[in-house]
Amino acid sequence: MKTPVAVVGASGYTGAELLRLLADHPRVEVVALCAERAAGQRIDRVFPHLGGRLDLDIDPLDPDRLAERAEVVFCALPHGQSARAAAALLERGRLVVDLSADFRLRDPAVFGAWYGEHPHPELLDRAVYGLPELHRHALAGARLIASPGCYPTAAILALAPLLARGLVSARGLIVDAKSGVSGAGRSPSAATHFPEVGEGVRAYKVAGTHRHTPEIEQELSRVAGAPVELTFTPHLVPMSRGIFSCAYAAPTEGVRGEEELRAALAEAYAGEPFVVVLEDGLPDTSHVRGSNRAQVAVRHDARAGRVLAMSAIDNLVKGASGQAIQAMNLAMGWPETEGLLGAAIFP
Amino acid sequence: MKTPVAVVGASGYTGAELLRLLADHPRVEVVALCAERAAGQRIDRVFPHLGGRLDLDIDPLDPDRLAERAEVVFCALPHGQSARAAAALLERGRLVVDLSADFRLRDPAVFGAWYGEHPHPELLDRAVYGLPELHRHALAGARLIASPGCYPTAAILALAPLLARGLVSARGLIVDAKSGVSGAGRSPSAATHFPEVGEGVRAYKVAGTHRHTPEIEQELSRVAGAPVELTFTPHLVPMSRGIFSCAYAAPTEGVRGEEELRAALAEAYAGEPFVVVLEDGLPDTSHVRGSNRAQVAVRHDARAGRVLAMSAIDNLVKGASGQAIQAMNLAMGWPETEGLLGAAIFP
Amino acid sequence: MKTPVAVVGASGYTGAELLRLLADHPRVEVVALCAERAAGQRIDRVFPHLGGRLDLDIDPLDPDRLAERAEVVFCALPHGQSARAAAALLERGRLVVDLSADFRLRDPAVFGAWYGEHPHPELLDRAVYGLPELHRHALAGARLIASPGCYPTAAILALAPLLARGLVSARGLIVDAKSGVSGAGRSPSAATHFPEVGEGVRAYKVAGTHRHTPEIEQELSRVAGAPVELTFTPHLVPMSRGIFSCAYAAPTEGVRGEEELRAALAEAYAGEPFVVVLEDGLPDTSHVRGSNRAQVAVRHDARAGRVLAMSAIDNLVKGASGQAIQAMNLAMGWPETEGLLGAAIFP
Amino acid sequence: MKTPVAVVGASGYTGAELLRLLADHPRVEVVALCAERAAGQRIDRVFPHLGGRLDLDIDPLDPDRLAERAEVVFCALPHGQSARAAAALLERGRLVVDLSADFRLRDPAVFGAWYGEHPHPELLDRAVYGLPELHRHALAGARLIASPGCYPTAAILALAPLLARGLVSARGLIVDAKSGVSGAGRSPSAATHFPEVGEGVRAYKVAGTHRHTPEIEQELSRVAGAPVELTFTPHLVPMSRGIFSCAYAAPTEGVRGEEELRAALAEAYAGEPFVVVLEDGLPDTSHVRGSNRAQVAVRHDARAGRVLAMSAIDNLVKGASGQAIQAMNLAMGWPETEGLLGAAIFP
Repeated sequence: MKTPVAVVGASGYTGAELLRLLADHPRVEVVALCAERAAGQRIDRVFPHLGGRLDLDIDPLDPDRLAERAEVVFCALPHGQSARAAAALLERGRLVVDLSADFRLRDPAVFGAWYGEHPHPELLDRAVYGLPELHRHALAGARLIASPGCYPTAAILALAPLLARGLVSARGLIVDAKSGVSGAGRSPSAATHFPEVGEGVRAYKVAGTHRHTPEIEQELSRVAGAPVELTFTPHLVPMSRGIFSCAYAAPTEGVRGEEELRAALAEAYAGEPFVVVLEDGLPDTSHVRGSNRAQVAVRHDARAGRVLAMSAIDNLVKGASGQAIQAMNLAMGWPETEGLLGAAIFP
Repeated sequence: MKTPVAVVGASGYTGAELLRLLADHPRVEVVALCAERAAGQRIDRVFPHLGGRLDLDIDPLDPDRLAERAEVVFCALPHGQSARAAAALLERGRLVVDLSADFRLRDPAVFGAWYGEHPHPELLDRAVYGLPELHRHALAGARLIASPGCYPTAAILALAPLLARGLVSARGLIVDAKSGVSGAGRSPSAATHFPEVGEGVRAYKVAGTHRHTPEIEQELSRVAGAPVELTFTPHLVPMSRGIFSCAYAAPTEGVRGEEELRAALAEAYAGEPFVVVLEDGLPDTSHVRGSNRAQVAVRHDARAGRVLAMSAIDNLVKGASGQAIQAMNLAMGWPETEGLLGAAIFP
Repeated sequence: MKTPVAVVGASGYTGAELLRLLADHPRVEVVALCAERAAGQRIDRVFPHLGGRLDLDIDPLDPDRLAERAEVVFCALPHGQSARAAAALLERGRLVVDLSADFRLRDPAVFGAWYGEHPHPELLDRAVYGLPELHRHALAGARLIASPGCYPTAAILALAPLLARGLVSARGLIVDAKSGVSGAGRSPSAATHFPEVGEGVRAYKVAGTHRHTPEIEQELSRVAGAPVELTFTPHLVPMSRGIFSCAYAAPTEGVRGEEELRAALAEAYAGEPFVVVLEDGLPDTSHVRGSNRAQVAVRHDARAGRVLAMSAIDNLVKGASGQAIQAMNLAMGWPETEGLLGAAIFP
Repeated sequence: MKTPVAVVGASGYTGAELLRLLADHPRVEVVALCAERAAGQRIDRVFPHLGGRLDLDIDPLDPDRLAERAEVVFCALPHGQSARAAAALLERGRLVVDLSADFRLRDPAVFGAWYGEHPHPELLDRAVYGLPELHRHALAGARLIASPGCYPTAAILALAPLLARGLVSARGLIVDAKSGVSGAGRSPSAATHFPEVGEGVRAYKVAGTHRHTPEIEQELSRVAGAPVELTFTPHLVPMSRGIFSCAYAAPTEGVRGEEELRAALAEAYAGEPFVVVLEDGLPDTSHVRGSNRAQVAVRHDARAGRVLAMSAIDNLVKGASGQAIQAMNLAMGWPETEGLLGAAIFP
């Protein structure tokens, strides 16, 4: 029998992507959808692309009713709201995979500095950061999963093996990332109006003001065993999906060349089902669209004495919904790749 | 045990899309890839997006060797070449699904007028036109399938039920279609160079010069029971995938309104797994991207006395590779939807 | 001395485009900008692309003050509002070029049916439809100019010469047009959110429901000397600027071939500075971006007995702001091309 | 009387952009076009967007004939070819503005290392690097102008004032730049085929392998008075025009905050007609499209101790053809802004 799952916040892009992927997952059945905005509508009114695939109505959020029906609940609500929903569902014994920022930062003070007071700080300790490549063991049996941000996923996957092996310095890291517009969500705004975005590139929330900064720092500090302070620059580019991240780091003293760096990535990700280490080519977001795979590559700029750690992911899949399902698979004790092996859509 | 299948012409976009879909098909295993251009390379060199998903080398085309290994062969070669490969494989007892134009036109004279002399006219009678919605019964047990063109699929799905029921006239049909650039194939050209295509719309091969014209006419004439002569206008729009087709037809005398037209579509496609009849909204190529579904809708312009039959498909899926697999499923006696139910990727 | 001009509705796209063009116009000086939304801001806050080019603050609309300062006023407000502003400025003796729909339809009943009651029906007779290629003489000395809609401009330029010479029938006309997203204005909405628009084509307001329908009918009826009832289908394509229009018409009896049709366009537009009749190629919106030129071409589909009249314009220039300036030039007795000769921006 | 000018290499994108701008320049007349590929054709066959604006045939390159007709010659040929054409024209007494890389690097050894042996090393000393913001005085009266590369223009404009004032260190500079596809030229290739580029971001020629690296280093070293070794990472994004550059630098010891950095840019560019220093917003390539203006901004990441120097230009205008005309204006002793003041096209 299939495990009943629900999606809360089903009217946003990560919600839609959860539904696309869960509909093909052999071990689950989507039994309930919640979204305040669209309550009462059939899902294909909100997302016509799901027409013919999923036939469910959207309900308002009612934790009691939800806990009765679903065993696993994905929360894709705005931060703050998501924590409250998660708390209610946890209390009712459900496995919660939270896609908001609410449980990603372990330190309530750091959370407070970036997002304001946490509604449920007591839960922070129980949450497991849902990046399987770093936290696979902790995810087995987890009951509250903090699914990572899209930019952090891209940056961490490229840098972690190099920091873990001491090949690059934890100091002076720079992450210059370029994202498609779906990362801004589904609410229309001047900044995401088609003619304002088309044929243009721009940076935004630069110089330590983007909220993904402390999340990247937290995880990289853990891996490096030393505090990381990051310069993080997000950019918006005229495409719907995808993040390309280029991180700059200083090689540590012993590093002799590119081979050593490549070997570190290859070794770190040898058994990983969703990380493709590129040897010759460079990552390209158009090669991971719709897929849970990340492409990573490293280069050594010998002239300037610098290491480049690059990655490409689909921000809605490996950067959000696919990764959330990957974490659920681990938490449930299922094969990690269940429902997630589909190739990227190209072109 | 899985049925071994091969893809000939694996280095083009329809080849890549076949591989993406076949890799998820539960009843087949891709055992061989052929492509002259890329022979000797691993598929992820030619298509990095398949890296981590498919690990196969590309071979030059050798019918004997291919027939030994595969039971079903998809031919996605340029026209002329495809017929020769198909003939060789048919002779060796293989099921051939041909994605070129070589077997789509039943009349060798019509083929000759549009493409030049047919290399194997004797095979035209054996080919079944692979549009399951019109030829489902003939496809069961077929050994040579002529997979339809992308524009014909879009136009026919919207118009056929109206013509079949005599609701619109077979005379004076117009099809105005808008396609993404992947329809032009993977070979670079001035016409598909990014800066020449971006931010622009243009018509091409207008006024009865596009080779999909006779194919649409053939199938609609059959359905209408009367000769159809079509004005077909293809356009190129700045996107990679998708066809939006708007057909204009004159309602026949008895037609009383839009309800009757909608009912005809609804009835015709009631049991169809891959045709979504929209009641309120209009088709949108972004709602079928990556999916084998077609969206269709009909409207009655009462002021001007005109019927609009609209559709949206993914040119590489329902307009090519997905449909080819759908036809294979029927020919093999498998469930028609096997491997094809995946939702569209949106956004 | 330069003529002082003002732009009312300066915070929208047609406003911005007026400013770009007027800043280079040798006979005028922009002295005032109005826009309720953005009043009090400097124009480069609202439109950073004008930074370094234009240094003006935006004021709230005050007809007295405006009439004191400017001799010519461009009104680019939403319909209804625009008529009221125009009336106030006309009364104060100013030349008004109105870019809304308020003065385009001559018949108050037709206006009422499509837009609701007209706030100033008494002015309809005084307005001149600002398509210079059809109304050049009437524009000389005009005091109230109704600048045409973008779709009507594209459709009329391609069809008018053929209808005027009786080469195509006034009955059964179809206009299938494809527009960039800037045509929807600058207000964000779900329908213009980047990820919803990108990589997709869709029709909207089909089957006689788009408000540009009666405007096209009015002008073509006048030219044809017979009532035109049109099927008009607008589409949205993923680009910011441009309209490609393909009109379908039945050739009249005597028409012998394409040459005759081409000659009609060539003759009609022989002296026109802004209409380029293409002989070999087909129109392409990317070849008119930023320019006041229209490309037109005609083809005869001899197989199906149909005439195709195609055109491409920049919806914000020849379809709005450039054309408004062209009309002002005529009304002021200046050279028609003043300030408008700039080549298109390609790519 | 207007000065007769010619464009050699008129069939590429920089050639087209020169023609668009020169056609509006009040002091020159384009009298000759050369391009091997397209010789014998009228320019509007090669560039339909110039139809109705420019009526000239393309000739094969003949220095004698060219020198007879034109006083100023813009060379936009591939490197190597361009130097040979320039040498021939210089010898015949013409002012040469060269848009290739041939005269940008002052040191023949550096040129050799990146491009191979220089065909005319004796000319390197005579060439003036055509970035007016740095070399205005030298450009007055220059006879051979080396028009800068697009990436160098973007990077140098943002960094030069900070280096010149000693506010950032010359060591450890990083330039992460994102370019539209027109930067790759007009020749079709797999890497610029629309479906391969659309909806994707990728880096290319990373880690010290892109030929613009030594050019940036040369100019920044001069400004800094110390050798600069740069990490330069170019990216391709799905748009036709524009470069967004984000440079990372270490603040020098005395730097107290962002105000000081902003003041440096404001002061450096106070009188500059084509550099817009943004105070609040950030640069955006869509705000400089078609314009000769550069937007620059600086931010201080106080958390991580890093300076960000950002810029946006149109790669074909300020990054190529517009800047070349700006340099010609200076060399000819004309007002620097002649023919170049046009606002950007937005959206």
